[in-house]
Amino acid sequence: MSSERAKPGTLYLIPTPLGEGVSRGLIPESVRAVVAALSYFVVEHPRTARRFLKQVGTGTPLQELRLAVLDEHTRRDDIEALLSPVLAGQDAGLLSEAGCPAVADPGADLVRLAHVHGIRVVPLVGPSAILLALMASGLNGQRFAFHGYLPTDPKQRKKRITELERESAAQDQTQIFIETPY
Amino acid sequence: MSSERAKPGTLYLIPTPLGEGVSRGLIPESVRAVVAALSYFVVEHPRTARRFLKQVGTGTPLQELRLAVLDEHTRRDDIEALLSPVLAGQDAGLLSEAGCPAVADPGADLVRLAHVHGIRVVPLVGPSAILLALMASGLNGQRFAFHGYLPTDPKQRKKRITELERESAAQDQTQIFIETPY
Repeated sequence: MSSERAKPGTLYLIPTPLGEGVSRGLIPESVRAVVAALSYFVVEHPRTARRFLKQVGTGTPLQELRLAVLDEHTRRDDIEALLSPVLAGQDAGLLSEAGCPAVADPGADLVRLAHVHGIRVVPLVGPSAILLALMASGLNGQRFAFHGYLPTDPKQRKKRITELERESAAQDQTQIFIETPY
Repeated sequence: MSSERAKPGTLYLIPTPLGEGVSRGLIPESVRAVVAALSYFVVEHPRTARRFLKQVGTGTPLQELRLAVLDEHTRRDDIEALLSPVLAGQDAGLLSEAGCPAVADPGADLVRLAHVHGIRVVPLVGPSAILLALMASGLNGQRFAFHGYLPTDPKQRKKRITELERESAAQDQTQIFIETPY
């Protein structure tokens, strides 16, 4: 018997495409191989996560996978608990709702805690709306900034856009933000 | 006979992985299908581009592909000429040396001109060192800025890092820049 703690597992960051029925063709083979080997996932929404995992293909039957939720309502202490299986030696996959985990979603806190605990973090290749928009824009890709969502209040919003315009001109920097139809 | 101009082709933006022998598993199927259908590419370095294309698989034999160079020495007028085959109706692929075309490479000028000429631009999914680094960092992914290379002069460099530190604290924004071993 040994009193040593188990070697921690690895936390894989798995990008997911926006939209349905397209996942398979957009996900590289190397990423599919990682997904197939995992049985524990930290996800934003279990329903869409299951749909994605089904399309990509899992090694473990879908209903036997362990899915834990990390969203904007998750408390700090609960985020730490999500890493317990990983500290006990199991690998985990972090899925974003759409795009790259830890970029414009609550995943960054989990990644930060993984580093604190000495857990190996492996980011995988996949779709990012932010980067695709920047590539397709023809705007400066040597210097750019991402600002997330703009304020919803019209006055605040206008003020923020004016600030970003000024910054863009002063720093010769492309400004990226998210706009939703909702 | 018609005097109408040909319908322009599409400009596909094709991300490429850094490193050798790994391309196939990192490139999604949908991207491989696009590459297989193209015979005209705008590339930064023909030698590494050919190696990438060989790994991914082309529809046209490698030696029959048309490869035009776009790098930091290409003059503005010559960039415009790279779009002639596309204006004549042929599709083209823009390859970066490593990562996403038009992000931290000279491709953005070609994309901008493509928009001026009404050419359809389609960014494809693939690896980006900038984004992978951000994902894996556990730092704030809701707000971040990319600054390209820092100054090489030690004094200027230190000054710039201090500036970025200040900006990072004031705006709660992750700062990303490139450092090379050269």
